[in-house]
Amino acid sequence: MTTVNRRWLLARRPEGMPDAGCFSLDTASVPAPGPGQILVKARFLSVDPYMRGRMSRTAGYAAGTGIGEVMRGGGVGEVVASNHPEWKPGDTAESMAFGWQEFSVLTPGHPGPDAVNRIDPALAPIESALSWLGMPGLTAYFGLLDVGRPRPGDTVVVSAASGAVGQLVGQIAKLCGCRAVAIAGSDQKLDWCRALGFDAGVNHRTATDLRAAVKDACPDGVDIFFDNTSGPIHDAVMKRLSIGARVIICGRIALAATHEAPEVGERHLGRLISTRASVTGFLVYDWWHRRGEALQRLAAWHKAGHIKYREDVLDGIERMPEAFLRLLTGDNFGKQLVRLG
Amino acid sequence: MTTVNRRWLLARRPEGMPDAGCFSLDTASVPAPGPGQILVKARFLSVDPYMRGRMSRTAGYAAGTGIGEVMRGGGVGEVVASNHPEWKPGDTAESMAFGWQEFSVLTPGHPGPDAVNRIDPALAPIESALSWLGMPGLTAYFGLLDVGRPRPGDTVVVSAASGAVGQLVGQIAKLCGCRAVAIAGSDQKLDWCRALGFDAGVNHRTATDLRAAVKDACPDGVDIFFDNTSGPIHDAVMKRLSIGARVIICGRIALAATHEAPEVGERHLGRLISTRASVTGFLVYDWWHRRGEALQRLAAWHKAGHIKYREDVLDGIERMPEAFLRLLTGDNFGKQLVRLG
Repeated sequence: MTTVNRRWLLARRPEGMPDAGCFSLDTASVPAPGPGQILVKARFLSVDPYMRGRMSRTAGYAAGTGIGEVMRGGGVGEVVASNHPEWKPGDTAESMAFGWQEFSVLTPGHPGPDAVNRIDPALAPIESALSWLGMPGLTAYFGLLDVGRPRPGDTVVVSAASGAVGQLVGQIAKLCGCRAVAIAGSDQKLDWCRALGFDAGVNHRTATDLRAAVKDACPDGVDIFFDNTSGPIHDAVMKRLSIGARVIICGRIALAATHEAPEVGERHLGRLISTRASVTGFLVYDWWHRRGEALQRLAAWHKAGHIKYREDVLDGIERMPEAFLRLLTGDNFGKQLVRLG
Repeated sequence: MTTVNRRWLLARRPEGMPDAGCFSLDTASVPAPGPGQILVKARFLSVDPYMRGRMSRTAGYAAGTGIGEVMRGGGVGEVVASNHPEWKPGDTAESMAFGWQEFSVLTPGHPGPDAVNRIDPALAPIESALSWLGMPGLTAYFGLLDVGRPRPGDTVVVSAASGAVGQLVGQIAKLCGCRAVAIAGSDQKLDWCRALGFDAGVNHRTATDLRAAVKDACPDGVDIFFDNTSGPIHDAVMKRLSIGARVIICGRIALAATHEAPEVGERHLGRLISTRASVTGFLVYDWWHRRGEALQRLAAWHKAGHIKYREDVLDGIERMPEAFLRLLTGDNFGKQLVRLG
């Protein structure tokens, strides 16, 4: 077995849109697991929008990564050494605590989002634990069902609709009897959304009048807006809210280049009064105690053919920054992953 | 009895802050009640922030008043003629359908916000039906209790705290075991708020750093923000939200001069994610079916000495525009009313 662990460090904080120079590929020794710990060799690593926030010092729901520290992130891989009685080499483990590296020492039994979860490779491809059967799936599940509270007949608009979370929001909305409307950045992405069951789509890059395009796609208004982007898409949809609409603020990927600056724009507060709508910030970890319930349902829906899912996979740990930057610019198509050899 | 009905018409739509020239005093004959209707002589007329919206064409929750039409508004007065079996001269009636005029024809039995309500003069001064025992009281009651969902120990911040709604929000918050923080435009108003039981206050006109002042007044953050103003006060409070905070958007009186323009400013959507807070537009008429419950409780609290209330009364129908403009500029101190001879 190799004794080298390649890992990506945060080299400098971004000013505006991150670039490849923000990261540096470092080589260290493969770490040794301590008592009760396991050593895992990553098979897939995830890149997710939340990582943009962690590159900054900005206070938020999670501490920023320090300069020279390994970029944090989730992964799934194979146990190669174990000092824990319930884990043995060959087991498959998933955790948000992998980091952007080939080998990770993990501590099973740790509660909360950094928990180590056992993955059954017979149930689904192991990388599903980073996509529809993992954190993005849980985000769609709880954000739509518990914050959005969909009713049959509701119009549900999803931004970044072909992305890791958006694909699932649309499909769960259809299971709820809703009309699902996709907003995405290419016709190819919208074609995929239609294949998933979305009823209509808006290409936010080619629409000459985004507000009019949303209106055309939502003739009866918008009951639920699952917003992954913020920015101009947010404005266009907010202007179509129906009475009693629910807006879920899940992400702000459109603002990746201006993360540190206050977001200035139309506030829509008068519209909130006239529609009595609510805008709620969403963080999936608040629902982590119900993770099991959600994964069971997602697995059952998948088995029944109700969930299709697209991943966008790059090969090799050296491509981690590229994968992450694709995500920030919307150049990915489906859940962005990196596969390790 | 006089046969003259003085009434205020909308003369022109405001461009920016309304002024006296937006209204014209008209003289008409006292109208005759039709079958099932009553004629009421106003004793008190109300001016309320929502009237600013009705002066504009802007689509909202209510149709705008037409040029040359009587300004709409609530009032309380004495029945002087009745074609309705359940109403007789001398009865006291309250309704949102009075309009800015001395005599109104009302239709009892009409459901919804324009309903005609019987007032018991023995219970409280009749003008209470326009203040703490009427629409502003219901606004505070349902906005705080049902949208805000206060818990003992919560910090509740109220803007326009000495106003028609704000005074009650603070006092109901105290009944709930909350810490109540007033934001108002003069030290005199804040003194009144303290007399009502508010625990702390911020003078938004004299604070050199509004955000720092809110922070000082809310060392443990803000769990509920009952916002009657929007504008810079909104920003200062949004930056202090606690995890899971509830923001009630009840009014935007600070924007009276720019009602027609989109409100542009910081959006605070990132903060909503990190705090998982919700921002909900509130309109009291959604809760009108529970009006009886709320009025009973407000009356009981008042009887028990838990509710004090300040009104700001001008005399004479000719002062309606003045009363309304005082409200828009914050020159009133307490619920603004006009008493008719």
